[in-house]
Amino acid sequence: MRRLDDGTSYREPFDQLVYATGAGPRRLEVPGADAQGIYGVATLADGLRLREVVERERLERVAIVGGGYIGIEMAEAFVARGLAVALVELGPQVMGTLDPDMGALVSAALREAGVEVYLGERVTGFQAASGRVRAVETDRRTLPADLVVLGVGVQPRTELAARAGLPLGESGAVRIDDRMRTGIPGVWAAGDCAETFHLVSRRPAYIPLGTTANKQGRVCGINIGGGYARFPGVVGTAITKFGQTEIARTGLNEREAQALGFEYGVARIEDRTRARYYPDSARIVVKLLAEKGSGRLLGAQIVGGPGAGKRIDVVATALHAGMRVDEFMHLDLAYAPPFSPVWDPLLIAARKLAEQV
Amino acid sequence: MRRLDDGTSYREPFDQLVYATGAGPRRLEVPGADAQGIYGVATLADGLRLREVVERERLERVAIVGGGYIGIEMAEAFVARGLAVALVELGPQVMGTLDPDMGALVSAALREAGVEVYLGERVTGFQAASGRVRAVETDRRTLPADLVVLGVGVQPRTELAARAGLPLGESGAVRIDDRMRTGIPGVWAAGDCAETFHLVSRRPAYIPLGTTANKQGRVCGINIGGGYARFPGVVGTAITKFGQTEIARTGLNEREAQALGFEYGVARIEDRTRARYYPDSARIVVKLLAEKGSGRLLGAQIVGGPGAGKRIDVVATALHAGMRVDEFMHLDLAYAPPFSPVWDPLLIAARKLAEQV
Repeated sequence: MRRLDDGTSYREPFDQLVYATGAGPRRLEVPGADAQGIYGVATLADGLRLREVVERERLERVAIVGGGYIGIEMAEAFVARGLAVALVELGPQVMGTLDPDMGALVSAALREAGVEVYLGERVTGFQAASGRVRAVETDRRTLPADLVVLGVGVQPRTELAARAGLPLGESGAVRIDDRMRTGIPGVWAAGDCAETFHLVSRRPAYIPLGTTANKQGRVCGINIGGGYARFPGVVGTAITKFGQTEIARTGLNEREAQALGFEYGVARIEDRTRARYYPDSARIVVKLLAEKGSGRLLGAQIVGGPGAGKRIDVVATALHAGMRVDEFMHLDLAYAPPFSPVWDPLLIAARKLAEQV
Repeated sequence: MRRLDDGTSYREPFDQLVYATGAGPRRLEVPGADAQGIYGVATLADGLRLREVVERERLERVAIVGGGYIGIEMAEAFVARGLAVALVELGPQVMGTLDPDMGALVSAALREAGVEVYLGERVTGFQAASGRVRAVETDRRTLPADLVVLGVGVQPRTELAARAGLPLGESGAVRIDDRMRTGIPGVWAAGDCAETFHLVSRRPAYIPLGTTANKQGRVCGINIGGGYARFPGVVGTAITKFGQTEIARTGLNEREAQALGFEYGVARIEDRTRARYYPDSARIVVKLLAEKGSGRLLGAQIVGGPGAGKRIDVVATALHAGMRVDEFMHLDLAYAPPFSPVWDPLLIAARKLAEQV
């Protein structure tokens, strides 16, 4: 152990050790990346500092690098403050955890709000003047920017774990079992530095999200305290929003299902969040996947207006239960005009999917 | 068959017959019940007529008889139009499909919006002047009213079924199997005139709701058309709202669990619909029941602000799957601050319940 205030070192013996170093933001290794005005947003302090900068300086143009959760949420915040926003994404779509057809709905929402979206472009460097960032350079264009926010993903902080000989999984994160044990007696791990188990693919996965980290921490604590607790795993549920557009996913998307060798059927429907005639009824697009033959549900993606996103929890619950699509389509979901059409959009999607698997 | 336009009769042979007479509103058999200004709301036409009356006449005071779905929804509509509303309910609580502690939250919301709520009072008659209703009389008081709306429940229209010898269930509604067959060859039934199967109590039940009627109709049609379809049944899900207060239930409430002889544990928690710090985070109260010993979930009730009600679908899905509370508490539900606390309120309730069953 090293004391950060005076730099002295000492040894601290332990009976039980929890490795909980979290994840760190990826950096961009390009020329100019250390210019002032380029920010990551990994911690609460990062967010506060960024808000202070935006409130203090007269900014006009913000460039966001990365079109995932962080990029989308930062775009929302800057658009709400009236700034001009450009978003650059290396991949062919924003929200890479969705399939391309669903990601396109998110791009459309971004563009409708005035965000310039550049897909399939690699950031090659940053231009600066007097040490301050002035533009983002991609392999296709130069985007002027007073401020740059990086949202290019995170990686588990495992340097210490690797040196200490903790087993790492294929993902590079610390491997743990369902009680949060690392395999080294007395050493536990939990949170964004560790893997979790994916209940649909039946394999370890690295999906660092706050709600999972929190659950793992609780299970770890109970076990260390002499109790008995298990964390069975996740089904890959996640949600975010951009303005009035809610974005959610669970289970496997098409790319993931293909990579795992599943033969699957897919249905995509468009419906309304509430009865069509009810005030503030909004569009909802639901995509649902199920395994051919068995009919077992594999995953879902939702993009839509207020009230759309949290519907993903119904599919997440069905995935935990290993439900088939022909069972799912009969679910007794809550109906009243302010809440849903007579058939919930999830059930409409399931009916369509049931014809195919 | 009788022609309604000229009163003549004829015989119409059939190969297949669907009995789909729906349900009719209960009437109050008390003096003055035929005065003008007393309305039921069973059909779309009833609703349109009522709106016309409200827009045409200078009304000040409305009395609603019945504190169920219709009563609550009509109270919402009249409050929104600025009318003084009194609601009289025979039972000891409004929303009799909830337990008393959850019903009390609905009463509180009604009173907060200015509705006078009178519980445990029997309507004994109506006062009229020149044939027009002027007041509702209960066993405790006289409530002046320019308009009275009755929401005292419905009953299945089975007179013809009974005369024709269709088997009726204990509930009095037409008994059907999971393919909508009545037991009489070639005769089918579906919708609010018929029973359904309750997947938690494992017994026939009469729960006339639009979404179930619609599903039954579809299954009936497929079967008559030579296809094969089954409607496995319901779990007793229902939802409504009063203003900003959403009200939902599924499965069995305490009274129903007791009547069926279940030994159960119960947990009730209060939390927020979104992260506490996020704008428009609202209160949510979740009550969850599970069977002692097996831990199997039995039901849930939710009362809370926007975003609370549709969460009931997660429990409905779990009930379909026969999920235990210790499985339910680990569900991978969607978290982001605009949508939920880190642990969804349903999971907080499940954690508390898991300690007891």
